[in-house]
Amino acid sequence: MTVKAYGAHAADKPLESMDITRRAPGQHDVQVDIAYCGVCHSDLHQVRAEWAGTLFPCVPGHEIVGRVSATGAHVTRYKVGDLVGVGCMVDSCRHCADCEDGLENYCDGMVGTYNGPTADAPGHTLGGYSEQIVVDERFVLRVRHPEEQLAAVAPLLCAGITTWSPLRHWNAGPGKRVGIVGIGGLGHMGIKLARAMGAHVVAFTTSESKRQDAQALGAHEVVVSRDAHAMAAQAQKLDLIVNTVAAPHDLDAFLTLLKRDGTMVLVGAPSSPHPSPQVFNLIMKRRALAGSMIGGIPETQEMLDFCAEHGIVADIEMIRADEINAAYERMLKGDVKYRFVIDSATLGG
Amino acid sequence: MTVKAYGAHAADKPLESMDITRRAPGQHDVQVDIAYCGVCHSDLHQVRAEWAGTLFPCVPGHEIVGRVSATGAHVTRYKVGDLVGVGCMVDSCRHCADCEDGLENYCDGMVGTYNGPTADAPGHTLGGYSEQIVVDERFVLRVRHPEEQLAAVAPLLCAGITTWSPLRHWNAGPGKRVGIVGIGGLGHMGIKLARAMGAHVVAFTTSESKRQDAQALGAHEVVVSRDAHAMAAQAQKLDLIVNTVAAPHDLDAFLTLLKRDGTMVLVGAPSSPHPSPQVFNLIMKRRALAGSMIGGIPETQEMLDFCAEHGIVADIEMIRADEINAAYERMLKGDVKYRFVIDSATLGG
Ligand SMILES: [Zn+2]
Ligand SMILES: [Zn+2]
Ligand SMILES: [Zn+2]
Ligand SMILES: [Zn+2]
Repeated sequence: MTVKAYGAHAADKPLESMDITRRAPGQHDVQVDIAYCGVCHSDLHQVRAEWAGTLFPCVPGHEIVGRVSATGAHVTRYKVGDLVGVGCMVDSCRHCADCEDGLENYCDGMVGTYNGPTADAPGHTLGGYSEQIVVDERFVLRVRHPEEQLAAVAPLLCAGITTWSPLRHWNAGPGKRVGIVGIGGLGHMGIKLARAMGAHVVAFTTSESKRQDAQALGAHEVVVSRDAHAMAAQAQKLDLIVNTVAAPHDLDAFLTLLKRDGTMVLVGAPSSPHPSPQVFNLIMKRRALAGSMIGGIPETQEMLDFCAEHGIVADIEMIRADEINAAYERMLKGDVKYRFVIDSATLGG
Repeated sequence: MTVKAYGAHAADKPLESMDITRRAPGQHDVQVDIAYCGVCHSDLHQVRAEWAGTLFPCVPGHEIVGRVSATGAHVTRYKVGDLVGVGCMVDSCRHCADCEDGLENYCDGMVGTYNGPTADAPGHTLGGYSEQIVVDERFVLRVRHPEEQLAAVAPLLCAGITTWSPLRHWNAGPGKRVGIVGIGGLGHMGIKLARAMGAHVVAFTTSESKRQDAQALGAHEVVVSRDAHAMAAQAQKLDLIVNTVAAPHDLDAFLTLLKRDGTMVLVGAPSSPHPSPQVFNLIMKRRALAGSMIGGIPETQEMLDFCAEHGIVADIEMIRADEINAAYERMLKGDVKYRFVIDSATLGG
């Protein structure tokens, strides 16, 4: 089946309208008519070949929501008409310890929603900036939000799960003080989720102008990280920090805010390394610096269900497909509150 | 009471014999006639003022074993003649969360066995390179080893607990694969303890010449870390790494050996930072880089009891007090298997 998509033919070319083909649904496949697709920083890095190994044509997009339009004969969990989501991956090896633990995101055979290996044409996966996608039901999520929220659900599939997974794994909840560093696409979800989990939430931003926004998102406290006095007041106060800032920065300034046995989890990989953290700050209070990448399929479903129950969605700005190149430029300047979402109805022009 | 000690009057002076005074035992104090004191790298750093804030005269030593020679009226746990140990600390605030959790080592008010604040003359604590020490019973440990092993028990009070604590905290034991990086004073204890806990132990060394020693200490496997092929064979194999190497080195080479959710614990602080680890290596498998410092009093007792039960002591080389300056030079060259211990009977000259 030929469908409309938006993608790039080379790293130095803008994204443009293109036709791509999707396979006919196999026995375990779900065919999804995409309604909306969120725009993630990863999309930009991949399509511009700022990360190794970009394959062209490159159609980004891994924050996908839509409606099931066909199912394979052996599909048991979804039927035509269901509201569903597809996130950062569309397959994995399915038999390693990671897959068995429902953490397919850590599987060495994980297949990304775009730029991953596939038998389908053109030999690598093409993502959600397209009218349709065909995915094995194991990698399809159920969306229980009301349909009018569907566009704002899309970013939960990457920004949501990327912050949810470390919050859950490191036990954010009542009685815990949780820091969220950076108030962007990931951070704004981190604040909402940590707050809804019952934690005391401290948001960290470099920009005084984001104070009111962070409070509105649910932060109990907002600290401007350039304010040494405000930072000192948080010393040894936090149980967990989810650090969403990918740009290289001083990790020690945040590590010292952790209590004994506290953990700072990095969810963004900088293109050049952070300044090396002081080992002393880890040793003195048995602190840990950890990383976390997206989340597994079962926990993504858990997150979506939690968000539906608590009425949580992303704050989004809807764009037309032909606005994507301009949206990338605005994203690079941090000029978005807090996620662009493509209306798939505009892919046809 | 005036007793013989060995210490330095200035950072650039060698250690020499000196007389120091010990307080009369208070109501909760235990007076210990020191039999042996281990020689830790920290002693050297502190006495040479390589760390900030060294106070002179400086009498190092925090791997102390001996026999109780007097007790205060309210002492309940020890009596004259008991074999006891004193480790890296002699006091703490006693009411913070760390103290209440038995992790006095992380208390902000922790008082080191030497160079810590005290009302006793000369205003800072003086350590175990001395004939006697007076310590509140809360910070005194019971030694259940046979007396003939007493000298080799001394290093358990720092090298032992420093490796025991992270091994226990991060659940080394049957079914777990544990790496020990560096085969020195700390590392040789880490190998013995991890082996006795039931873990599969992989020792890492830069030196092929240490292979047989590491096996004799209990390592199931020995990897020369300069051997890229041998390192690659350990990729994603380890649940936990206790890294005892304080010299700056490539942490990524070891982080990549951890399984998903594995942790590398640093127990040595380098004088200049390690090269910054790749965030990618943390994110890809939800790994953590953590630190750990000595251990609390209850877990130190647990470690000593475990070692008595399993017949574990340190490998030591006994020295006379007047050999301490030469011993420091040998320590700097790694020329000791694996811990010097001062025979306190030689302090008198
Ligand atoms: Zn993403
Ligand atoms: Zn797998
Ligand atoms: Zn020590
Ligand atoms: Zn305390």
